Amino acid sequence: MLGQMQDWPLLVHKIIDHAALYHGDREMVTREVAGPITRTNYRTIASRARRVAKALVKAGIKNGDRVGTLAWNTHRHLETWYGIAGMGGVYHTLNPRLHPDQIAWIANHADDKALFFDTTFTPIVEQIAPKLKKVKFFVALTDKANLPKTKLKKLYAYEDFIARVDDKFEWKELGENAACGLCYTSGTTGNPKGVLYSHRSNVIHALMAGQTDALGVSGKDTILPIVPMFHANAWALAFTAPMIGAKLVMPGAKLDGASVCELLETEKITMSAAVPTVWLGLLQYLEQTGKTLPHLKRVVIGGSACPRSMIEAFETKYDVEVVHAWGMTEMSPLGTLGSLKWHLADLPYEEKLDIKIKQGHPPFGVEMKIVDDKNKELPRDGKTFGRLKVRGPAIAKGYFKGDGKSSFDKQGWFDTGDVATLDKDGYMTIVDRAKDVVKSGGEWISTIDIENLAVGHPAVAEAAVIGVAHPKWDERPLLIIVLKPGKTATREDILKFLEGKIAKWWMPDDVVFVDEIPHTATGKILKTALRERFGHHKLPTA
Amino acid sequence: MLGQMQDWPLLVHKIIDHAALYHGDREMVTREVAGPITRTNYRTIASRARRVAKALVKAGIKNGDRVGTLAWNTHRHLETWYGIAGMGGVYHTLNPRLHPDQIAWIANHADDKALFFDTTFTPIVEQIAPKLKKVKFFVALTDKANLPKTKLKKLYAYEDFIARVDDKFEWKELGENAACGLCYTSGTTGNPKGVLYSHRSNVIHALMAGQTDALGVSGKDTILPIVPMFHANAWALAFTAPMIGAKLVMPGAKLDGASVCELLETEKITMSAAVPTVWLGLLQYLEQTGKTLPHLKRVVIGGSACPRSMIEAFETKYDVEVVHAWGMTEMSPLGTLGSLKWHLADLPYEEKLDIKIKQGHPPFGVEMKIVDDKNKELPRDGKTFGRLKVRGPAIAKGYFKGDGKSSFDKQGWFDTGDVATLDKDGYMTIVDRAKDVVKSGGEWISTIDIENLAVGHPAVAEAAVIGVAHPKWDERPLLIIVLKPGKTATREDILKFLEGKIAKWWMPDDVVFVDEIPHTATGKILKTALRERFGHHKLPTA
Repeated sequence: MLGQMQDWPLLVHKIIDHAALYHGDREMVTREVAGPITRTNYRTIASRARRVAKALVKAGIKNGDRVGTLAWNTHRHLETWYGIAGMGGVYHTLNPRLHPDQIAWIANHADDKALFFDTTFTPIVEQIAPKLKKVKFFVALTDKANLPKTKLKKLYAYEDFIARVDDKFEWKELGENAACGLCYTSGTTGNPKGVLYSHRSNVIHALMAGQTDALGVSGKDTILPIVPMFHANAWALAFTAPMIGAKLVMPGAKLDGASVCELLETEKITMSAAVPTVWLGLLQYLEQTGKTLPHLKRVVIGGSACPRSMIEAFETKYDVEVVHAWGMTEMSPLGTLGSLKWHLADLPYEEKLDIKIKQGHPPFGVEMKIVDDKNKELPRDGKTFGRLKVRGPAIAKGYFKGDGKSSFDKQGWFDTGDVATLDKDGYMTIVDRAKDVVKSGGEWISTIDIENLAVGHPAVAEAAVIGVAHPKWDERPLLIIVLKPGKTATREDILKFLEGKIAKWWMPDDVVFVDEIPHTATGKILKTALRERFGHHKLPTA
Repeated sequence: MLGQMQDWPLLVHKIIDHAALYHGDREMVTREVAGPITRTNYRTIASRARRVAKALVKAGIKNGDRVGTLAWNTHRHLETWYGIAGMGGVYHTLNPRLHPDQIAWIANHADDKALFFDTTFTPIVEQIAPKLKKVKFFVALTDKANLPKTKLKKLYAYEDFIARVDDKFEWKELGENAACGLCYTSGTTGNPKGVLYSHRSNVIHALMAGQTDALGVSGKDTILPIVPMFHANAWALAFTAPMIGAKLVMPGAKLDGASVCELLETEKITMSAAVPTVWLGLLQYLEQTGKTLPHLKRVVIGGSACPRSMIEAFETKYDVEVVHAWGMTEMSPLGTLGSLKWHLADLPYEEKLDIKIKQGHPPFGVEMKIVDDKNKELPRDGKTFGRLKVRGPAIAKGYFKGDGKSSFDKQGWFDTGDVATLDKDGYMTIVDRAKDVVKSGGEWISTIDIENLAVGHPAVAEAAVIGVAHPKWDERPLLIIVLKPGKTATREDILKFLEGKIAKWWMPDDVVFVDEIPHTATGKILKTALRERFGHHKLPTA
């Protein structure tokens, strides 16, 4: 028997309509790519989003078409999202930090029919334009006055593009499972894979994010989403903030410490979200200038593991609460958030930090388990390592065009590719990437843990651990070290330093010294290259 | 094109599973109907809910069957809900405050197949049992020791009922639109009508309620839901609290000021929700005893309009924030909540109160508009009266078995039967019931406003206004007055008192004095009876 409740599809553009009606005067501030700080509000944004939709239809964009964006966080980028989604299209965020060839590959794989871009990226667009097979026209997110000199053809200035129509546009009637957004994972192996969000998943994810113990934002907050909209939906903020009527401050292209600090001060930001690198820049700037953070109450830090010292600096020095979060593009992206549970509130601060450096616990709507190589569920004891699998209404069930099928099992679980522990309170800790973990005699050794310890040695600049074949144990850890300029240390020095800090059976079987460790474009250690070079290293124990 | 996100149906029993896994140790406290305070936790509740489900299947309850509950807020009642929903049944809350004949009528209309009840209600159940056509068995929500002496047949003690099975039960795989709960509106006219909630509507409603500016509860809260589970889902708390891991304190049968105050103190309650009558009892008790509310931070008040003096007492005297809320059984029930918007936070307190006595603004997921008699939308200016219509994923699209079709229009809007204003900030104010409002020359006059003013006259005990036929204006207001014992006042005294307090054209055309005004069972003025008696009253202006 079915319930008798309304068939009210969860559609993304209903969010901006709600914002316009109930929070219409609430301000949105943008540091424009062209320079100045500008102000608008949700009422105006909703109206302009309808213009975007109408202009796209007029320009020949059809239901289901992907429309690329190569853009910073600005009000125009937000209008573009809602406009594309509201006319039945799919906003497709392209990451400008990738190599232009890769951007072109992704835009072609997605069959993007148009491309909206910030003028910062004009050189990239000029370079890739000849390769873009399906793109019918380009829209520079600016006005005519600021349009760059370029030979790009079929180019509109955004303000002209939306001035061609009025805002009388009925949002497209869609089912809630209609595609809404597309974002490719960078992927350290193979080609990038596309995650195709639905209206439903974005709305449910925004509701999950709006819970008090998740992002915890309210309509009284002034939010600075530094995490880019091209980085997995800006961690829900582009949807959650309008949903609740929070003020959004969009930082545009300038994400350095001084620029971020200026916005925090002048706009009295109460909440912000970014990756550790950005916060490092801010903290260094604060150190240098002696400035403080009088308005900021809470920061969400994710994207990569947040160092203990960063949490400590924010909380003890600047009185800003840190929520450590973890997620993936495939998860819309929020997976876990580190709000402290009720019974942990009275712990001594050092013990709270022990919990805060974990990746957090999942909100309702994210199921999580760890399994062994045979897909058997493992205990939630805070110690046992396992492959982390997740399930939920805002988690991918596959990649665009059928790529990457092996990441999804028959019970609907997505394999994150991470190895993690889950503790009895539900806090998850990422231990390693599954392809990096060392499998020694059926037990797993975290390469990240050993690396983090090894860099504590005063002579060590960088450390990497890989698994190397071993006749008895299958694999054993090899520690690869780059020494600091002018410093020396022996194999024995390093091993002695690790002794007692890790389990005996975790001790690397050998140490090698190299001049340089190879990195990916985003600064991560390129372990594939290390495995190629050292995979057949002869261990003294073998 | 469809998105590629997981088909993860929104099912109510996933909430209790999440609570068991991630907030398993979080306590639930109950003042048992039998007397003592008992303690359990979400892990145990989830386990016992599976026993309920398994026992129901064993007892012959089938998918889609309605199972009645006649019960207070207790952990057993909560287990029953999740157990029924998780085996594919429909929990059907019966209101014990109705006349037993009406309870029997409702249980029969719903085809209830079993009835769970608190021992307080044994006399009611004994009385109605012979009339219940479909009920196969009864379960008293207690253990064998506390089972009342009764001649009821096919009766189990709850603890025996669930001890017949273990907790190895796979929740039924359901679509999210499957029926989950049923609650009848009392309805001042005609028979009660059933609202059939789905799993989806309950889960989405719980997510909406969990937003910071809605109920604003967090896992750190200790929540006392005084509003009964038989009163429209306890305003989402039975779902939202486990979803976020808040501690629940269930007050059982004792809702008087002293009992409520005791729980607030001993369990250090931080948030509670109830109708004004309950809070009146608490405030009077505090006055009498000089006690304070050191732990309580926030109360949600709804069900009927909250008097200004009550908001003021909580906020200025006891430092407890009041969130004034409005909803309907048909809305799951939350419609609006009165959290103060950002730009109102700095108003002088008296002006804040002007806003707080409004019914609040809708969260995302509740669409709201006011319309005239021709269904034309009216302005949101805070002045214009209109019929309030609502739409959303947790709002009914019809009543059980096809009753009450006229309340739903073709565009999917539900007519609340209320007349309201909407202001530019989105705050809604209930002005009158649509059937009570006086329609004078095409304009609407609020009977409630005139009544509230009239009772301010020192000689007036109670006042009621009805519309009376008028040859020129269609209807004009007639004011009906009950004087206080020993007091006197004339028609002219009363009208003079109103002068200047309301618009000239709102002034009643006549005043009549009566000994008594008839009331409904729940204490509301029975205007149908007044219209029967005075509908043909000859107005001096006619």
